[in-house]
Amino acid sequence: MKVIELKETVTASNDRDAEQIREKLRESCTLLVNIMSGPGSGTTTFLGKTVRDFGGALRIGVLEADLASSVDAERAESWGVRAVQAHTDGMCHMDAGMTMEGLDALSYRDLDLVFLENVGNLICPAEFDTGASCNVMLLSVPEGDDKPLKYPLMFRTSDAVIITKTDTLSYFDFDLDACRERILRLNPDAHIFPVSAKTGENMEEWENWLKHKMTDWREQSDGGNKQ
Amino acid sequence: MKVIELKETVTASNDRDAEQIREKLRESCTLLVNIMSGPGSGTTTFLGKTVRDFGGALRIGVLEADLASSVDAERAESWGVRAVQAHTDGMCHMDAGMTMEGLDALSYRDLDLVFLENVGNLICPAEFDTGASCNVMLLSVPEGDDKPLKYPLMFRTSDAVIITKTDTLSYFDFDLDACRERILRLNPDAHIFPVSAKTGENMEEWENWLKHKMTDWREQSDGGNKQ
Repeated sequence: MKVIELKETVTASNDRDAEQIREKLRESCTLLVNIMSGPGSGTTTFLGKTVRDFGGALRIGVLEADLASSVDAERAESWGVRAVQAHTDGMCHMDAGMTMEGLDALSYRDLDLVFLENVGNLICPAEFDTGASCNVMLLSVPEGDDKPLKYPLMFRTSDAVIITKTDTLSYFDFDLDACRERILRLNPDAHIFPVSAKTGENMEEWENWLKHKMTDWREQSDGGNKQ
Repeated sequence: MKVIELKETVTASNDRDAEQIREKLRESCTLLVNIMSGPGSGTTTFLGKTVRDFGGALRIGVLEADLASSVDAERAESWGVRAVQAHTDGMCHMDAGMTMEGLDALSYRDLDLVFLENVGNLICPAEFDTGASCNVMLLSVPEGDDKPLKYPLMFRTSDAVIITKTDTLSYFDFDLDACRERILRLNPDAHIFPVSAKTGENMEEWENWLKHKMTDWREQSDGGNKQ
């Protein structure tokens, strides 16, 4: 497993860099999914379940971003996928240049699907286009149904919102309908998937959505030369 | 309840501003406690229990910082304390200048104790001295015992670490001893309080620690002119 040390990129335009990343990923027909969440919302467990459910059908890479430690990339390697741990030098988010360094460290060109697990933070990552083709955010039941009210930008910039740890719904005071309504008020196009990676509940619905995203991406890419 | 809209302060030195705030708070004999945590770690519930346990013995103010919404300050007002909601204009942390604006909006001078509930974020708030006399962080059991490995600066800058939602320990895979050891490796002076604000378990130990902090602060201040 590689560990890379990243510095914030100083460029004129993060958005231009992100567009260039999408162009490169179109060439290699690799779908990049940017996963954002607060600390401890169960992202790594959720990713592990997703990767295992896909079995060996896809070539998958995982880019784990954290301030410190390599625990997540070690877990990702144990699922049998290519994994890189990126340390962000204290930075609270990934930008496009940092993501490109991570993709290169992953040798992404023969991969079908790359998950970027962004730094655990519901604020800053929402402000930076990483070059991903879709943004997915996780909110766990223990965090509470009021989070859309407090972190609106994150919910606005996400194509899909995964509500994780639904196996704990009976323990916590979390109103799924109220939460759904708050999310849709901010982002009427959001796809909302309440799941439990622990029990497997509703994972299939999310995985089907992701498969559709891959098909769309392949159609936009150069003839899907890897399939 | 007041709602104030803050902008990031542009000054030569945040540290100098923070020192000036401490000087002012010494004059009024007001202890400012900076509470930091990730989203949904139960900070507002924990503060509510603390405030109610103190009863009417102290004059308490609460400064709630969020990107948006006023749900937390509304809850704080329901405890019978003075509360101000600060909106941070997208900023992921409070700096010293923003804190001073919040203290002024609270009319802090006749208060014994002010809690600043910082923006929910385990990264950026740790980098800015707010002028508080002590930093307290919360980590909830559902977030996981590996968080000290991933967010080391937050654990290093906190005088006390509160491990919240211990009533859920039987449900989640959280190793309290391992977590304690990780925290102390980063910060050997940290005071660690595992609590449940829901059941009240161990709240007294934390509250006694805070009372000692208040006594110390009063001794450093101008004769404790309010007592």
